[in-house]
Amino acid sequence: MIVKHGMNYLTVLNSARNHKLAPPLAVLRRQQFLIRVLGVRGENRMQGSKFEADSDNILRAITPVFDPNRHKGQAGKVAVIGGCREYTGAPYFAAISALKIGADLSHVFCTKDAAPVIKSYSPELIVHPVLEESYSVGDRDKDHITRRVVAEVDKWMERFDCLVVGPGLGRDPFLLDCVSEIIKQARQSNVPIIIDGDGLFLVTNNIGLVSGYPLAILTPNVNEYKRLVQKVLNCEVNDQDAHGQLMSLAKQIGGVTILRKGKCDLISDGEIVKSVSKHGSPRRCGGQGDILSGSVAVFLSWARQLILADEGNLIISPTNPTMLGCIAGSALLRKAASLAFEDRKRSTLTTDIIECLGRSLEDICPAC
Amino acid sequence: MIVKHGMNYLTVLNSARNHKLAPPLAVLRRQQFLIRVLGVRGENRMQGSKFEADSDNILRAITPVFDPNRHKGQAGKVAVIGGCREYTGAPYFAAISALKIGADLSHVFCTKDAAPVIKSYSPELIVHPVLEESYSVGDRDKDHITRRVVAEVDKWMERFDCLVVGPGLGRDPFLLDCVSEIIKQARQSNVPIIIDGDGLFLVTNNIGLVSGYPLAILTPNVNEYKRLVQKVLNCEVNDQDAHGQLMSLAKQIGGVTILRKGKCDLISDGEIVKSVSKHGSPRRCGGQGDILSGSVAVFLSWARQLILADEGNLIISPTNPTMLGCIAGSALLRKAASLAFEDRKRSTLTTDIIECLGRSLEDICPAC
Repeated sequence: MIVKHGMNYLTVLNSARNHKLAPPLAVLRRQQFLIRVLGVRGENRMQGSKFEADSDNILRAITPVFDPNRHKGQAGKVAVIGGCREYTGAPYFAAISALKIGADLSHVFCTKDAAPVIKSYSPELIVHPVLEESYSVGDRDKDHITRRVVAEVDKWMERFDCLVVGPGLGRDPFLLDCVSEIIKQARQSNVPIIIDGDGLFLVTNNIGLVSGYPLAILTPNVNEYKRLVQKVLNCEVNDQDAHGQLMSLAKQIGGVTILRKGKCDLISDGEIVKSVSKHGSPRRCGGQGDILSGSVAVFLSWARQLILADEGNLIISPTNPTMLGCIAGSALLRKAASLAFEDRKRSTLTTDIIECLGRSLEDICPAC
Repeated sequence: MIVKHGMNYLTVLNSARNHKLAPPLAVLRRQQFLIRVLGVRGENRMQGSKFEADSDNILRAITPVFDPNRHKGQAGKVAVIGGCREYTGAPYFAAISALKIGADLSHVFCTKDAAPVIKSYSPELIVHPVLEESYSVGDRDKDHITRRVVAEVDKWMERFDCLVVGPGLGRDPFLLDCVSEIIKQARQSNVPIIIDGDGLFLVTNNIGLVSGYPLAILTPNVNEYKRLVQKVLNCEVNDQDAHGQLMSLAKQIGGVTILRKGKCDLISDGEIVKSVSKHGSPRRCGGQGDILSGSVAVFLSWARQLILADEGNLIISPTNPTMLGCIAGSALLRKAASLAFEDRKRSTLTTDIIECLGRSLEDICPAC
């Protein structure tokens, strides 16, 4: 696409130079940008109209109305499992995004090395230095350290409305073994799990960890999706039948929900497929996937609260809380990213997008 | 309540969708919000008028007028006992709030792990890495480490106008044993003590630590209050007689002052009950209780200074400095929270509220 648009752009540039009546370059660049971001090519219009989710209304429907009688924790308690010797930004992005959207409490479970750094990013987070990596664990100690790590997380498990597994997790074998056990504990406690980043590396190599768990959400990017398709469907990605293939993949993994991130986000639970293509930004700075995982965690928690409380009287479609959480999370991130890009253009960073989460939410769903 | 409001909201959503003449969703949400926040139900109006403290005038009465002849420390020296392996934000919120309101010096006594992180949040705080947790202490060393920890705090004790015990304290048994000894030292030195967070867990299990100490303030939230009532009054919380039960509880603990946090803050010293219900915010992000404990510490110190200096000629009601401190602290936090919410709405975090403390204080009680 870059080459194609580059060529388009040069053609435009020449015509602008050759004809006095041609519109100014800035206007042409703006037009080209809008064409690319809004994707007003034939197949996108079709796709948008047929599968596009009513994302703003869904977000409004699942976001709780404020009630002064509620107390701390009732608007959501989420936990991020991630943060190791190399990565400390990703779990922070996911955890702080959850708070900025409206969760009451946000925890991070990371390695001892990562904890002081993640804590120093924000006093708002509760950071537990409990994970261990191979370099700090002797072979003899592995069993009892695994039990200790899993127990440290499990004593909190019942309190969490959602777990985000993967942001900045790294690929240390011992750490990933512990995280596999944590995922099993979360399933036993019926806690929803969002799998992103290195969590997808873990799960793609051991699909049984999430297979058949309807409260699991996978949020792969282009490459992570490719590996998932190859591993589970034993074939290559087929963009001619993107919707059908995504639905088959979700069904094959036993009805988990998959949010395939891209220019247009595609979401399926194996039963239906929805797309979210409004707004968005052409900037691809690292960390936006972490905002998405933290956002989906909050909206999924709210959708689940609403559906459990409403005992089936809820008039909303789709009715699967994981689908609702993905649609709302995708819509909010895309709007925040577009607002940040309007302001910062090429220098847009993930922290700029996080700063736009509140305004985006207020635009779509005013607090009062 | 979640069910009720979820259903209300969806009914509204449907009517808005089904009837052309239905008011816009934003208007309906606004109306619902105002009805809940203003609490225009009979019992709330009654409660407010009968027990509501004259909080703004009390805050103005106890806040000292600036005097160029005063020197560092005379406007207040507070200390927070808290901060452990998991929690570093809570003691920071309490200690920095005290400074933002006007204290001259704010100390934090925490574990060695927590100290560098808390120091990194702000260069304004004096952070002492003196507390120890079980995992870093051998059984043989416990006695002399306890003596050393208590001595480290005690050598500062006489300088403090108020101690805040509990924000981010954690529940490590050895650490809590040391804190019990610190509370005993503070009582011997006649230093006021505010007990919050995990400090309430400690005190609820050993009520003798504060029983009969008139300079102790407990600041329980919904769950902490429930445990306190069960333990001390051996019954359940009775919201039909919220005022009477709170007064009985405070009297039963020998005249300590209790600030029961909620939609309407209730305060009693066993003799009278006052409420503070002005302003406030529907956002329940974690950390607001820490701001309150730091604020009450400063106002209590000022009220006590004023009462001691005035030798009984002070015309102000109530006359108990712990009641005055609680009323002013509650009023200030509620105003700051409402200002922050006006600006940030759903994305309001505790740090946003702390940034509004100065403006709130200036609105109620201009510096000059």
